[in-house]
Amino acid sequence: MLSVKISIMRNIKLLLEYEGTRYEGWQSQRKKHAPTIQETIEEGLRRITGGPVDLVASGRTDAGVHALAQAAAFKTDSTIRVDALRKGLNSMLPEDIRVIGAEVAPLDFHPRHDAVKKTYFYLIGLSPALPVFLRRYMWALPYKLDLKAMEEAASHLRGERDFCSFRASGCGAKSTVRRLMELEIKRKRKMDFLTFSFKGEFLKISLSADGFLRHMARNIVGTLVEVGRGRISPEALPGIIASRDRRKAGPSAPAHGLFLERVYY
Amino acid sequence: MLSVKISIMRNIKLLLEYEGTRYEGWQSQRKKHAPTIQETIEEGLRRITGGPVDLVASGRTDAGVHALAQAAAFKTDSTIRVDALRKGLNSMLPEDIRVIGAEVAPLDFHPRHDAVKKTYFYLIGLSPALPVFLRRYMWALPYKLDLKAMEEAASHLRGERDFCSFRASGCGAKSTVRRLMELEIKRKRKMDFLTFSFKGEFLKISLSADGFLRHMARNIVGTLVEVGRGRISPEALPGIIASRDRRKAGPSAPAHGLFLERVYY
Repeated sequence: MLSVKISIMRNIKLLLEYEGTRYEGWQSQRKKHAPTIQETIEEGLRRITGGPVDLVASGRTDAGVHALAQAAAFKTDSTIRVDALRKGLNSMLPEDIRVIGAEVAPLDFHPRHDAVKKTYFYLIGLSPALPVFLRRYMWALPYKLDLKAMEEAASHLRGERDFCSFRASGCGAKSTVRRLMELEIKRKRKMDFLTFSFKGEFLKISLSADGFLRHMARNIVGTLVEVGRGRISPEALPGIIASRDRRKAGPSAPAHGLFLERVYY
Repeated sequence: MLSVKISIMRNIKLLLEYEGTRYEGWQSQRKKHAPTIQETIEEGLRRITGGPVDLVASGRTDAGVHALAQAAAFKTDSTIRVDALRKGLNSMLPEDIRVIGAEVAPLDFHPRHDAVKKTYFYLIGLSPALPVFLRRYMWALPYKLDLKAMEEAASHLRGERDFCSFRASGCGAKSTVRRLMELEIKRKRKMDFLTFSFKGEFLKISLSADGFLRHMARNIVGTLVEVGRGRISPEALPGIIASRDRRKAGPSAPAHGLFLERVYY
């Protein structure tokens, strides 16, 4: 009798939620002190599918950055149903990473190349001593910020721009032109938390673009804060963009205030 | 010339917010692996007031229990203004403990003896895989719970009762009679978190009493969950109370779902 084993390759797309606090980011870019999110999930997938797995994300979130719905995909010839895969993976993953969706995608689907839009938001607490429950998720700034000036600066950044001044050294992207579709600054007087809320002064900065260069979201936020503090004038923004010089823009905002909210395909 | 130093003793009341995750509780009851909240704050106060400090709380929260407004007090002859004390202490404390209020109280004020009511709440997530951002603050239960039965059980617990069956061994209270003024179970379809919210099935159990025996809040919640799972009948509650036997009630609910919400004076 002839036995033929036919293995069918599938491309499986995952939606991932994670708290970045404990990780070196999606993938380590330097000498490692902590696990990465990618290797942690790959290890779980290896145990479930029985083979080595190469998990590709929509983008590599930095150490400390959180995700509400990061998209990633991997190819496997395992025949496991996606629902069983999601449940099995969740039972193996540490409790700061969770699979919130799993589906079969076309074989040529690529989480990074096929993304048409990504949305991040960044939280700032304008207080010298933030509520303890909020500390992992926002940048505590003990300053008054000039929101009007920040709005004006934002208006210069929206649209298709060369964001070379806002990318980290080491960013490997060939083109530095991106379309920033949304850059919105919202003031908030309270922050919800479970069944209660904390009063205070908070900012939520939402950013959507067709792609983000390395550290681009954090560098835009850091620059807006410099404008809010009066250390960069909003009218200086066109010149900062034109300079294509990272040193002209503001410093990176800390990673722990940044959330990857959604990836659009 | 005669120099006379007159030291005036003051009683200072603090309101404290803390995330219990990293601590052995307010005060350690056993061999220590982690710092306690009491000693952490006392160390800060010692540095600010220049002398040893004995900080007394409204009650000793267990390891892992959170507080939105724990009350505590200490006596000092330091002349520091309470506002400067609050700010100075916050700059010294680790970021999971925060002083949200400081005021001078009458010299005979006692945070435990003078409390007339304390309110706790307990959060439960009815899901095998909770959103990662909620995991520190609720008990994940992958069961359906019979809310009607839990409500009926709660009705037997409300009022002045002997809660001997609901106190931990090692509880030193002389009387085990307490007045449970509120025991409310609320079902929630979403849980707010910062600027977003998670859909799901959640329970919030609110408990107010003139005092709580050791583990009493957690033992009441644990018993209600046993009722919800059908393992204790709601009609059994009067017998469980009358037995004055800890083994008749349900197990302790995990500490990390419990919040001390407010202490009334």
